[in-house]
Amino acid sequence: MPGKPDVSDDAEDRSGISADRRTFMGTVGAITGASALGGTALADDGDEKTEVGGEGSRTGGDAQNAILVIPDGAGQAHISGARYLKAYQEDSEAFPENVTPDGTTLNVDRADRIGGMSTQPDEPELLITDSGAAGTAMATGTKGYNGVIGGIGSEDDYTPVGTVLEAAHEAGMATGLVTTTRITHATPAAFATHVPDRGMEDEIARQYVENGNVDVLLGSGKRHFDPEERDDGEDMLARAEEQGYHVVETEAELADADDGKLLGLFGSESDRSAHMSYYVDREYVDDTDEPGLVEMTEKAIEVLSDCENGFFLMVESGRVDHQGHSHDNTITHEQLECDEAFGTVLDYAEDDDTPETFAMQVADHETGGMSLGWDAYDMDWAAIDEIRASLEHLDYAIEEAGYDRGATVDVVEAHTGLELTEGEIIDIVGGDLTNVLNKRTQMGWSSDSHTGEEVPSYASGPGAEHFGQYFDNTDVSVGIADALGLEFEPGREIDYEIRN
Amino acid sequence: MPGKPDVSDDAEDRSGISADRRTFMGTVGAITGASALGGTALADDGDEKTEVGGEGSRTGGDAQNAILVIPDGAGQAHISGARYLKAYQEDSEAFPENVTPDGTTLNVDRADRIGGMSTQPDEPELLITDSGAAGTAMATGTKGYNGVIGGIGSEDDYTPVGTVLEAAHEAGMATGLVTTTRITHATPAAFATHVPDRGMEDEIARQYVENGNVDVLLGSGKRHFDPEERDDGEDMLARAEEQGYHVVETEAELADADDGKLLGLFGSESDRSAHMSYYVDREYVDDTDEPGLVEMTEKAIEVLSDCENGFFLMVESGRVDHQGHSHDNTITHEQLECDEAFGTVLDYAEDDDTPETFAMQVADHETGGMSLGWDAYDMDWAAIDEIRASLEHLDYAIEEAGYDRGATVDVVEAHTGLELTEGEIIDIVGGDLTNVLNKRTQMGWSSDSHTGEEVPSYASGPGAEHFGQYFDNTDVSVGIADALGLEFEPGREIDYEIRN
Repeated sequence: MPGKPDVSDDAEDRSGISADRRTFMGTVGAITGASALGGTALADDGDEKTEVGGEGSRTGGDAQNAILVIPDGAGQAHISGARYLKAYQEDSEAFPENVTPDGTTLNVDRADRIGGMSTQPDEPELLITDSGAAGTAMATGTKGYNGVIGGIGSEDDYTPVGTVLEAAHEAGMATGLVTTTRITHATPAAFATHVPDRGMEDEIARQYVENGNVDVLLGSGKRHFDPEERDDGEDMLARAEEQGYHVVETEAELADADDGKLLGLFGSESDRSAHMSYYVDREYVDDTDEPGLVEMTEKAIEVLSDCENGFFLMVESGRVDHQGHSHDNTITHEQLECDEAFGTVLDYAEDDDTPETFAMQVADHETGGMSLGWDAYDMDWAAIDEIRASLEHLDYAIEEAGYDRGATVDVVEAHTGLELTEGEIIDIVGGDLTNVLNKRTQMGWSSDSHTGEEVPSYASGPGAEHFGQYFDNTDVSVGIADALGLEFEPGREIDYEIRN
Repeated sequence: MPGKPDVSDDAEDRSGISADRRTFMGTVGAITGASALGGTALADDGDEKTEVGGEGSRTGGDAQNAILVIPDGAGQAHISGARYLKAYQEDSEAFPENVTPDGTTLNVDRADRIGGMSTQPDEPELLITDSGAAGTAMATGTKGYNGVIGGIGSEDDYTPVGTVLEAAHEAGMATGLVTTTRITHATPAAFATHVPDRGMEDEIARQYVENGNVDVLLGSGKRHFDPEERDDGEDMLARAEEQGYHVVETEAELADADDGKLLGLFGSESDRSAHMSYYVDREYVDDTDEPGLVEMTEKAIEVLSDCENGFFLMVESGRVDHQGHSHDNTITHEQLECDEAFGTVLDYAEDDDTPETFAMQVADHETGGMSLGWDAYDMDWAAIDEIRASLEHLDYAIEEAGYDRGATVDVVEAHTGLELTEGEIIDIVGGDLTNVLNKRTQMGWSSDSHTGEEVPSYASGPGAEHFGQYFDNTDVSVGIADALGLEFEPGREIDYEIRN
C-alpha cells in the first residue's frame, strides 16, 4: 500500500537484517566488566534508594561529565527544518526574515564547534550504515557490520568489544541511556549490550538488567522485559527491581521517582511499534501518560549528577529516523524537540555551578535524503506547522475508517488544517497521503532508506576541540574518553557471554 | 524529453525569471565608485602591463587578502561525494575503509572552522534562493530578490547597493573573479555589477569593462563581449583592451599572460550553453584548450598578489549547480576539482612567505536535494569513477545519433565503462539515461531545483572565527570586510547608472 508509514523495524529489513532472528551464542554465565549491584542509601523521603555509579574511583579529565545527544537519522536538512519551524512558530509575521542568527536560534547554535562526521560501516557489501553499526562505531571506537550491537566481525563470527559507557562505569561514573524508541533498540543498545543481531531485543533487555551498569534507562519496550511477552518467559521487571532499579511507566511516576537507579518503560503496549509516541501525537493527538524527551533528559541528569565520579549520558531522539523513512513532514517537530533536549543539556553544561561537562549533538546517519524543497523554489511552513499528527497516526486512522471517503477527509482535515482538493481526496483514499502532504509542503525526499553523507555535529565544553573538523564516527567514544580522562582502548575485545 | 540535461539557464526559469529579459533602467552615464584605469608599468619581458589594484591606500586589518571559493549548489552530500570519489580514486583496494580522516582528506578538512550558512532570499513569495539573490546577499551584506544582481527591492523598483569587492577596490586592493560559467553569470556578476535581472548579461559585461574595478576576470561568455553577438553591437573586447585588460582565450594564452589586468574568456562559442566544459568532458572527452579551475585560480592569485594593498578574489565552481539540476553523477568529479582549487587557495594562505590571508569555501545554496544513497544501503563508486562524460555530453551524442540503438549503446558504454542490460538500453533509447545511471550508482536526488537547507562552510585564517557557527549569507561580506579592515556598510545604496 503506498503511503503507509515505514517505521524502521520494517525499513531496516532492506539492509538484509531480520528483525526477529535469534542466534544462539553460548550458555548463560557471568557478565564481565560490570558491577552487578550499586550501593544503597536513604532518599530524602526516607525510602531506600540505590546509589548511581560504579565501584571504581576516578581521577578525571578536563570534563567531569559527558552527554551525547543523537537525533537518529538527522542530516543537515533536518536541523534546518527545525530552524524554519521554530522561526515560523515564534513569529509567523516576521517569517521568513527571522530565519537568521539574529532572529531565531536553535540550541545547536550555542555549541562551540561544528564538525562533520562520517557514517559508513565496516560492511563488505554495503556502504551505508544501519543504526546498529553506527551506534556500535560511536560507542566502541571501532566499526562493525550492519545489524551488530557492541561488537565486530560478522553475525556468524561475532566478537563483543567494550564501550565508552562501560569504561565510564568501570571508572566509577554514573551512566544513563535515554531514548524515544524501545530502550532495546539499536542505538541505546550499542552503548551497553553485546549481541550479533539487533533483533535480539529480549537478550538486550536481559543484559541491561543483569549487568546493571546503566544507572538510568528511559525509553519504551516493556514487551522485552515482561515475562508474558518474552520468548523465555523470564521476568526482567522483577529482576530489575532486585538489581536496585526503580521501575516507572508513566510521566507522573517518572516525575515522582527518587534519585537512584531508574528503569523507565513508557508508551502503550497496544501501540503497534511499541516505541514511544511521536512528538506531535503526544502533544496534539493522544492524551498519553508518556514523558517527553526533555523531561526524560532532565530527570536523567538530575539522577546521574548525584554521582561524585561524574556521569556519561546518551540521549537519543530515536524516531526522527522513522519519520525520515516514512517521509513525514512532522519530522521537523520531532527534530525541534530534540533541539530542546540538547538545550536542556547545554543549560546544565553551561551552568557555572555544575562541573565541567562535554556536550555534543550528532546523528548516527541521515535518513530519507530529506531536503527543504521539492520541485519549486518555495515551501509552505504554515502547512508544516499545522500538520499535527504523524503519518503513522493518520494512516492508521484512515485504515480504521475503511478508507471511507467522508471519514478520511474528516481525519486528515482535522489534524492538518488543510482543505483538501478533490484530486487530493482521491489520492488519499487511494492510499497516497504521503505524497499529498509533501506536495503541499514541498518537503523533498530522495530515499526510503538511510543515506551516506556526513552528518553535522555540534560540540561544547572540554573535548569539543576533537570535533571541529571532519571526524570518523569511531572518534566519538575516543574523544569522549579523552575529555573524561578515561582509560579506553577502541575495539577492545571483551570476555562476554550471550544467551540466544 | 525525460533525461535531458537541465542546465541552470533553463532550470532557473522555474523561479519565474526569464533568462533573456531586458529592462531599461536609465541612460548611459558615469559609473561611480570605481577608478576606470589602473596605472601602467613594464612587465619582466619589457611589454607594458597594467598594474592591478585601485588607487586608494589601505591601513589593513588582520588579513591582508581574502579568497572566497563558492561551489555553486553544493550541500553536504556534494562534499561527501567528492570525499568518496577521492578515496576510491586514491586507493580502490582500501575503499571504503579509507573514507576516514586518517585515510583520505579533502582540502576543506584543512580549514580552521566549519560553519553552516543560511541561504534564503528576501523574496516575498519564494523561500528558496536563486544564485542571483544568493550571490548578492554574500557580496553586499543585504538580501535581494531572486534574479537580482547587486541590488535590492524588486525588478520594477531596483536599487543598486555596494559590494565587498567594490569596497576592496576603493581601498586600493586588487580584485578578481574566477568561474567555470560565463563570467556574466549570476554569482560572479553579483560581486561587481548591478542589474535588476540576471538575464542582462550584455549589460553585466559592459559594466565589468567600463568600471574596470575587477583586475582579473576569468570564465567564459565571450558572446556577451563580442560585437557580433551583443544586442547593441558594441565591441567590449576592444574596449577591455583600452581599459588595460589583456584578453586571453585559451589555456596556453592564460599561462603565458604577463602580470597585469586580465580578461579570460574561455570555451567554445559553439557550445550550446557557452559555459566552460564540465571537468569530466574537459579531462576525458574533448581536446579542449580551456584551462581548469585550478589553473585559473593559480593565475589569479599570481596576478593579484602583486598588489601591495592586498587582494580580494572570488572563485566559483559554477557548474556543480548545473549538474545538481540535471542529476548527473559526474557532479562528484566537478566538486572534487573545486576542492583542489580550494587546496590551491589554502596552499597560498598557509604559506609562511605570504601575507595573512582569509580563505573560505561555502556554497550559495544546495541544488538537487542530492544524497549518497537512493533506495538501497549501498552505492557503486566504481561506476561513479568510470562515468567520465557529463550527462549533457552523452545526451547530445545520443540525440546526434538519432537515438539509434547501436550508436547509443556505443556512446554510453564508451564513456561510462558500463555493460548495459537490455532493459537499460530500452530506457536510454527512450530518453531516460539519467535514471539508468542513477539506478546503477544509487545516487539520490529529491529535487530538480535548489533547496533551502543550510550549506556547510569551511573557513581559515584571520576572520575564520566569524564563521564557526550558524551564520546568515549576508554575514559573508561583513566578516570578510572586518577581517580585511575595510570600511563597508552592508546594503549601502549607491549612485549607479544602468543601460538597458
